[in-house]
Amino acid sequence: MTAVTVLGQGPMGRALTAALLDAGYRTTVWNRTEANAREMLARGAIWAPSPAEAVAAGGVTLINVVDHDVVDAVLETAGRALAGATVIGLSSDTPDRARQTAELVDGLGGRYLDGAIMTPTDTIGTPDARILLAGPQAVYDTYHPVLDALGTSTWLGEDPGRAAAFDMSLLDLFWTAVSGFEHALMMAAANGIAPRELLPHALGIVDILAPVFIEIAERIEEDRHDDASAPVSSTAASVRHLVNASRDAGVDAGALEAFSGYVDAAVAAGHGADEISRITAEMVQPAAGSPTRKFRWQHV
Amino acid sequence: MTAVTVLGQGPMGRALTAALLDAGYRTTVWNRTEANAREMLARGAIWAPSPAEAVAAGGVTLINVVDHDVVDAVLETAGRALAGATVIGLSSDTPDRARQTAELVDGLGGRYLDGAIMTPTDTIGTPDARILLAGPQAVYDTYHPVLDALGTSTWLGEDPGRAAAFDMSLLDLFWTAVSGFEHALMMAAANGIAPRELLPHALGIVDILAPVFIEIAERIEEDRHDDASAPVSSTAASVRHLVNASRDAGVDAGALEAFSGYVDAAVAAGHGADEISRITAEMVQPAAGSPTRKFRWQHV
Ligand SMILES: NC(=O)c1ccc[n+]([C@@H]2O[C@H](COP(=O)([O-])OP(=O)(O)OC[C@H]3O[C@@H](n4cnc5c(N)ncnc54)[C@H](OP(=O)(O)O)[C@@H]3O)[C@@H](O)[C@H]2O)c1
Ligand SMILES: NC(=O)c1ccc[n+]([C@@H]2O[C@H](COP(=O)([O-])OP(=O)(O)OC[C@H]3O[C@@H](n4cnc5c(N)ncnc54)[C@H](OP(=O)(O)O)[C@@H]3O)[C@@H](O)[C@H]2O)c1
Repeated sequence: MTAVTVLGQGPMGRALTAALLDAGYRTTVWNRTEANAREMLARGAIWAPSPAEAVAAGGVTLINVVDHDVVDAVLETAGRALAGATVIGLSSDTPDRARQTAELVDGLGGRYLDGAIMTPTDTIGTPDARILLAGPQAVYDTYHPVLDALGTSTWLGEDPGRAAAFDMSLLDLFWTAVSGFEHALMMAAANGIAPRELLPHALGIVDILAPVFIEIAERIEEDRHDDASAPVSSTAASVRHLVNASRDAGVDAGALEAFSGYVDAAVAAGHGADEISRITAEMVQPAAGSPTRKFRWQHV
Repeated sequence: MTAVTVLGQGPMGRALTAALLDAGYRTTVWNRTEANAREMLARGAIWAPSPAEAVAAGGVTLINVVDHDVVDAVLETAGRALAGATVIGLSSDTPDRARQTAELVDGLGGRYLDGAIMTPTDTIGTPDARILLAGPQAVYDTYHPVLDALGTSTWLGEDPGRAAAFDMSLLDLFWTAVSGFEHALMMAAANGIAPRELLPHALGIVDILAPVFIEIAERIEEDRHDDASAPVSSTAASVRHLVNASRDAGVDAGALEAFSGYVDAAVAAGHGADEISRITAEMVQPAAGSPTRKFRWQHV
């Protein structure tokens, strides 16, 4: 069994460390604030006083800190210790930042696999944890057993920006949905409805998302939006009422206003009788770049 | 078996009519555009040339049109035909508009139950359809069998605005989540990821929403946000990267920008180490009204 190092002992870094310890790995940890590592040291992790010493102690190094500016700063501190080392990055950031980290590690003579953790801390160490990886397949294959101790992992390709690209899109969905739920709770509160009263009905809405998402993905893939059982014009009316009610209740309507803008633009463009999948075109700002470059899945 | 009238033959009005016909109800329909009723007439529905004649033909009248401005206009046309009649409204709008329709029908000597349909047309006629009702319980009890032919119904109380209040909050969640998914598809596209590639991972995100929503609802109900396994400050960093990446890709970042604003405000207010449930306070605009009036579930 290889030795493992974990750089970063935030809530997620600690969850990763706990899962490795539970799986029997000799685990070395470093963190900017030593106090935050204490719990894992008490459970058997070994303290390293610097990133360089931590990297030197492990057969593979996991790094999980707030973002890739911090990832790069910590790895630069480790410097020459990275020569010949393998680093798996597990922090959230953009594809470009992930690629920069890959170049940094390569430049220091190491090998870099980028990853993104898609599930909360309490899933780590169970198959419910989902981890997306991208970068050299050989590294993924070699350290598959370590990743298996953390959860279910999926390799997405050699481009080290690809896990971050999926991560970003999925976090986009996750945080927008969470923000929609929190906003819904405030709209309910303004109407005398408690969170516990709305919750069961909100879970009913979650239940219908999967089939709706499947249909929308198909429509956008085929660029065909003419089978509307819920027309864009009807959504436009409904969302306009929501925005007004939110404003009247003194709850900021930002996310709904953005959506309302796309829906109204689709109606104005003559797509009122189409499906809601039609509105994505209204999210794209053509001025910002060539659509053929930006939206290249249609051409692969 | 009572006779039933359906005013409105849009996609949803037709689905309601089809379910009633399948259940064996004698069903009369009216619609502004007669052509849109043809499919149901061919399946056995009876055409009425005016709302008044349609109401006179039925033991109970369902009305399902785009919103309550249209509901009221149609019911005013029916006029004195509403004396002694029972109307069940099933269009989406605000609680205030639902209450106005109740007053209109009461004023014309009828009885009004307001409803909101929470699921798509293809669920209607199955137990998967969810319909929320509010208004006189006696009306709900009398016409329960008709509602059972449409789906699973829940009565929420005597206040005729209450179904609309739930509906609004739930549509808020639904449309915000849908808009988040559509935005995620565009972010993915900008990174060369096709809808079919993102979809299975997006469905994985849907799977984790229920436990996250349950936790957030509990936290807000208790107004306790200090058990953070995913701190607000970490979300702030992550969402900032998303907003920038969205802008760089030429995809409007409206919904994310609104969320980012609440998260940054929570950090600025000293709540960076708290849970994400903390941010709802940042959605409320205190200037717009007294929080004790608007957010009265905490006091019931
Ligand atoms: N928590 C989750 O549920 C979850 C789920 C999926 C993905 N993630 C991702 O996992 C990563 C870590 O998340 P987290 O929940 O553990 O909390 P976090 O607040 O994002 O990260 C905390 C970690 O970053 C370190 N850090 C922050 N600024 C630093 C700096 N300037 N220099 C050195 N270290 C610094 C902290 O060190 P100190 O202890 O010294 O502050 C700590 O180790 C993030 O990218 C997050 O998006 C988290
Ligand atoms: N479709 C769904 O999946 C769904 C799900 C839940 C709730 N709902 C709600 O159900 C209601 C109906 O939705 P829908 O999907 O059937 O489509 P819709 O476009 O919202 O409504 C179409 C109906 O409204 C009528 N209408 C529109 N403007 C009118 C006017 N000025 N005067 C008279 N009639 C007018 C249409 O008549 P014409 O045929 O003459 O245009 C048609 O009967 C809406 O409130 C919607 O929010 C729909």
